[in-house]
Amino acid sequence: MALISSDRIRFPADPWRLVETSHAPDKAGALETIFALGNGHLGIRGAHWSPADVALPGTFINGFHETWDIKHAENAFGFARTGQRILHVPDANNYTVVIDGEELSLEGSTVLDYRRTVDFATGIYTTAVTWACRSGAVVQTVGRRAVGFAVRGNLALSLELTSDRMVSVDITSALVNRQDQPVEETAAADPRRSGRHAGRVLLPLQMDGTDGSLRMSWQTAESRQRVGVAVDHALSGGVQAVETMAGQDVSTVRFVLAVPAGETVALEKSVSYAVADEGEDLDVVSAAAAALRPVAEVFADSASHYGRYWATSDIVVGGGEELQQAVRWNLFQLAQATARADVAGIPAKGVTGSGYEGHYFWDQEIYLLPYLSYTNPEAARNVLLFRHKLLPLARVRATELSIDGALFPWRTIGGLEASAYYAAGTAQFHIGAAIAFAANRYVWASGDHTFRDNQARDLLVETARMWVSLGFFGADGAFHIHGVTGPDEYTAVVNDNLYTNVMARFNLRAAAACRRDDVSDEERTVWQEAADRMHLPFDRTHNVYAQDNDFMTLEPWDWNTPRDKYPLLLHFHPLVIYRHQVLKQADTVLAMFLQWQEFTADEKRRAFEFYDPITTGDSTLSACVQGIMAAEVGYPMEALEHFTEAVFIDLDDSHNNTVDGVHIASAGGIWSSLVSGFAGMRDQGLMLYFDPRLPAGWDGLDFQLKMRGGLLGVSLTHEAITFSYDGPATVSVKVRDTVVTVGSGCPASVPLDAREALVH
Amino acid sequence: MALISSDRIRFPADPWRLVETSHAPDKAGALETIFALGNGHLGIRGAHWSPADVALPGTFINGFHETWDIKHAENAFGFARTGQRILHVPDANNYTVVIDGEELSLEGSTVLDYRRTVDFATGIYTTAVTWACRSGAVVQTVGRRAVGFAVRGNLALSLELTSDRMVSVDITSALVNRQDQPVEETAAADPRRSGRHAGRVLLPLQMDGTDGSLRMSWQTAESRQRVGVAVDHALSGGVQAVETMAGQDVSTVRFVLAVPAGETVALEKSVSYAVADEGEDLDVVSAAAAALRPVAEVFADSASHYGRYWATSDIVVGGGEELQQAVRWNLFQLAQATARADVAGIPAKGVTGSGYEGHYFWDQEIYLLPYLSYTNPEAARNVLLFRHKLLPLARVRATELSIDGALFPWRTIGGLEASAYYAAGTAQFHIGAAIAFAANRYVWASGDHTFRDNQARDLLVETARMWVSLGFFGADGAFHIHGVTGPDEYTAVVNDNLYTNVMARFNLRAAAACRRDDVSDEERTVWQEAADRMHLPFDRTHNVYAQDNDFMTLEPWDWNTPRDKYPLLLHFHPLVIYRHQVLKQADTVLAMFLQWQEFTADEKRRAFEFYDPITTGDSTLSACVQGIMAAEVGYPMEALEHFTEAVFIDLDDSHNNTVDGVHIASAGGIWSSLVSGFAGMRDQGLMLYFDPRLPAGWDGLDFQLKMRGGLLGVSLTHEAITFSYDGPATVSVKVRDTVVTVGSGCPASVPLDAREALVH
Repeated sequence: MALISSDRIRFPADPWRLVETSHAPDKAGALETIFALGNGHLGIRGAHWSPADVALPGTFINGFHETWDIKHAENAFGFARTGQRILHVPDANNYTVVIDGEELSLEGSTVLDYRRTVDFATGIYTTAVTWACRSGAVVQTVGRRAVGFAVRGNLALSLELTSDRMVSVDITSALVNRQDQPVEETAAADPRRSGRHAGRVLLPLQMDGTDGSLRMSWQTAESRQRVGVAVDHALSGGVQAVETMAGQDVSTVRFVLAVPAGETVALEKSVSYAVADEGEDLDVVSAAAAALRPVAEVFADSASHYGRYWATSDIVVGGGEELQQAVRWNLFQLAQATARADVAGIPAKGVTGSGYEGHYFWDQEIYLLPYLSYTNPEAARNVLLFRHKLLPLARVRATELSIDGALFPWRTIGGLEASAYYAAGTAQFHIGAAIAFAANRYVWASGDHTFRDNQARDLLVETARMWVSLGFFGADGAFHIHGVTGPDEYTAVVNDNLYTNVMARFNLRAAAACRRDDVSDEERTVWQEAADRMHLPFDRTHNVYAQDNDFMTLEPWDWNTPRDKYPLLLHFHPLVIYRHQVLKQADTVLAMFLQWQEFTADEKRRAFEFYDPITTGDSTLSACVQGIMAAEVGYPMEALEHFTEAVFIDLDDSHNNTVDGVHIASAGGIWSSLVSGFAGMRDQGLMLYFDPRLPAGWDGLDFQLKMRGGLLGVSLTHEAITFSYDGPATVSVKVRDTVVTVGSGCPASVPLDAREALVH
Repeated sequence: MALISSDRIRFPADPWRLVETSHAPDKAGALETIFALGNGHLGIRGAHWSPADVALPGTFINGFHETWDIKHAENAFGFARTGQRILHVPDANNYTVVIDGEELSLEGSTVLDYRRTVDFATGIYTTAVTWACRSGAVVQTVGRRAVGFAVRGNLALSLELTSDRMVSVDITSALVNRQDQPVEETAAADPRRSGRHAGRVLLPLQMDGTDGSLRMSWQTAESRQRVGVAVDHALSGGVQAVETMAGQDVSTVRFVLAVPAGETVALEKSVSYAVADEGEDLDVVSAAAAALRPVAEVFADSASHYGRYWATSDIVVGGGEELQQAVRWNLFQLAQATARADVAGIPAKGVTGSGYEGHYFWDQEIYLLPYLSYTNPEAARNVLLFRHKLLPLARVRATELSIDGALFPWRTIGGLEASAYYAAGTAQFHIGAAIAFAANRYVWASGDHTFRDNQARDLLVETARMWVSLGFFGADGAFHIHGVTGPDEYTAVVNDNLYTNVMARFNLRAAAACRRDDVSDEERTVWQEAADRMHLPFDRTHNVYAQDNDFMTLEPWDWNTPRDKYPLLLHFHPLVIYRHQVLKQADTVLAMFLQWQEFTADEKRRAFEFYDPITTGDSTLSACVQGIMAAEVGYPMEALEHFTEAVFIDLDDSHNNTVDGVHIASAGGIWSSLVSGFAGMRDQGLMLYFDPRLPAGWDGLDFQLKMRGGLLGVSLTHEAITFSYDGPATVSVKVRDTVVTVGSGCPASVPLDAREALVH
């Protein structure tokens, strides 16, 4: 049952807001996710302020995590050893509001009017509720919150209250440390989301509270990170707190007052978090306190940030308000996951939940960095700098796997492999190529030669070394890479996965093209040779590239499998899935999107036609890619269907796990679907290429790309694609067969012949 | 460093005994294993009686185990859920002997003479030690023990003491419950040997002790099995115990006396165990007490049992005393692992240790049942009856794996899959064929038509149903079985493993030949069709059968790997091992041994030549099979080398894990090496076939086979093979091309032309 798109009365379409107009208790966890706020560093779920109304509330700081020794039921050499899991930090979104002796809650009180909103234009979350109190009073509360961007540890909350008659008001504002709740309660049914730490995780260090102010800190038991929290309260009219209590689990500040009829009282709660790693010499309480800002300042900061964001990152789709709202919500999530992450990985759920344990995967490079590279190149660079920082650990990991170079962890927070199931973890060696690929694209898009000549080269060279030692030249003279898992985790530990080999080939060639003193000509020659002789499995019966050497010999999946048996990984043993011809997500088709220049139009079409029907889309990474390639190979209906599926994955909770957090990679895929799918943008080297496929029902598509210090505007209609460029020098763009050059004040338009768009 | 074979002063060759003539503390755990006693139900490690001198002491009862929920670090659908582990039962082998105030121990006292013996002819374990006490006395102690056979829960221990002068003696005889020791302490480095249960496992039920008698019982916390123990003490001269204390961890009976010079006092300790499963209405204490027998009676029972055993099961090898001793030690272990197991599985370590957690694997069918079928058919039948009892659970497990019929657990005690690593566990579907194969062989050997028409048919039919639903008819028209692991666990989850397909083919054909009302002709036809069209991968480049569809394309292993990096599984990540052409143990070569009639001599030779050099033998299951096939295909030197390696695996602790228990499958392989390797016996159907390959340096080989109620004597020299038969009717035997018929009082001899034995 779709959540948003099937109930437009409760969730009306609004191009700049996500709005909920009535409360219902079911799917409360998923709604907390889609109403979450974040800045890439600090995130707070969209939970209601009343403790009675929450499902899975939480506040998270990217990278603030606990570690533990992974206990394998049956261990073997080289298995991942260090579990890592993002932690709940003490949560400030908690008020108990008592009116004339009645505690307000959506569950227990009479609600006359209700409206929850996240405003994409300002980043401000609002709940406005009108309550019919048992005392006869009609009370309106308006709760607002926003995270800071200028200061990324800031969180601002306000709670306004107005009554139609004099009421007694008793408000307890709390800071709740939820960390020690059993992990089981926070994980949905997906068995990959394991992770355990026993006993208390956040150990109290400083616990001060006085006069409505809290100054507190905790330390994690194993990872030895510290978090400091400073909270100040200000009630309008200068009313003072009657009680302030600091405790390691619950800290409270209580206000008791009488509110006259028609008067609005406002409680402002300024919150500031500061974190420090083990050994870092930082007084986290002082740092948090020093960074505290008034609520109004944080709200203004958030609005200002989003003003700048939308000015360059908005995408206007001429496909109706509902779609525009959903697209902006996805773009909003991308900003929330990345804006102030700084040098860090981007968790698969951003900072909206603890799903996937807060880990960073390959999807940040393949699904998120296209968006970042063209809208926020500094953030793209930061992600890659983070990967570069992990190189020493990746070299150690390569040694553990008996290979050269660097082997990046499949999933990690601190840099150590945290995937306890290697067949869908460590075996995904392709993450190395994803990092190399993203580094390369960032360099094309940004023109950042410093990064190119330093970190990008390190990343390219170390991953190339990994590939040549992982693979080998077979008796047939070809270069083979065996025993790997591709993006499609429904086959695992296969030989010559096409995606892996195609991406490794790119990686080897890109590394061979780097000049570096510590790379010998011999080494470079081996890379070039391995790339040139890379084996790409091809099936002559179907005249299509094969996902791996054996894929075409597998037994077909039984497509009469009932819908409630999906996703397959939750209902079938891996051995059952692995031996059948069934895909979790695009694999060969993804290779043909990323390395588009290596395949003919016919090869891409045949691959799409072969793989699309046997791809379950059980992964949220799939629909966007299937849609992009559907557009390219001439299936416009399928392209729009896949896109629509992707754009509502979280808004409709269509995978039933939005409660765990926003699927950030899918949100990134939405950006790519629009820019690379419908506008048909491809990059490989310095020239951008466009082959637009505007859906027939849309009247246009407008977006901008940051390019080498400038801003390239792209405006697509059915008749033409028009470019403007505001930046240094000029930019050349190829539209199908036409090359145009755009400069500042010198736009260019290319007419589009509708017949060129393939239609089947 | 070899243990036994390199130190013939400490461990002199004796064809009927294992003897240790001096004490040294290192390898104490391995020695406890090779000096262990057992009857297949009850086992006691060969630990010294002084608590100061033990390494890893223990007493075990086959099938007495604890269960726990397996915690997978990353779980998935259908993963094994119930951990099972054999338990230490309270151990009676524990005396503290104090002479004139000095506690005797090999570690702390002055030892003048020492001799530890296990007598294969009687099953009696003896340690005779002469101590120079600090008081000046020279004291001799002789400890003896044996397990019962007539009553399988019986254990008898005696301790005699003689002094050259009057001494004061203070003996505390204990019963020690060691179950709650951390599991880590009991497991060697092999990472497959996991298993955890937290907290106390054996919970006390009845704890009575009085006048030197203990009547006690415990219950396991989770599996709810109960064990009762009755212990009686008798000291010569009627000396009474001064103190008897029963405790859940340690129970003690203490004797204090003065022993005059030259007089021998003897303390006899009769022990009896009884166990009951959950829900079984048995008073285990009363049952144990009722079964108590005097020590002398148990000793006589043991000697009598072995008298009968060797009369029909001995193998005389004309290859010298050292080899004869080692062969008899292996045959002795086979008896100890199976004699009174009754209807139960045979743990991979018998009852000599808790290695492999006391689990039953496929090796009981492939490595142990050939021996049992021809020496102890009733025991073979019991093992198969046990498998038959597990059919209901195996049907459930098949459903969990989305297949029909029955899927037997890769490793189990109670019948549930206990392998937490499916790639080397559940994926070894070939266990089903092993069970079908063993059932079939038992029927040939025994002529047991009742079993054939009942349990054997159930086993054949249910496994055949498993195979046809696991595999499929591919587009090439052939029947394929994908996503399986063969015996060689150094490749895993491969397609069309030759061993699996060959054994499945046998299984399908044997099932198709069964007549059963609930099997339709259509079903039978599908089995026959799948068997006839079974794909067997063959490599035309090397002109050799391929281990699986991809094996020949794998990268060669680096054979410069240093010796201390073996076994590979302890030093390389599975992904590294799996992608290389390297074998843990015989796989294709094993298929050609078991389904010998399906391959030409040339095919076998080429397979041996290809696979033998790339087989590490990291598994103790390998050497015996490699040796058997070396003999068949004409490599007599290699045959003898592999055999010699196999025969000393535990005696020399050559795999460094004998501490965990005797490798029973390898011991079974010794029997097969002699009977099928050097005597060249093959069976498939009713006629036995012999193609002898007596090692050049041996002067003969003599053994007997139980055949259809009779006893077939086989006597092999370089000149002839001679058969005698004592039993009903006659038996026909084929020697190379000659068929002879042997009847009671009517032996037959076939001369052997030495030239017929292939020599390369």
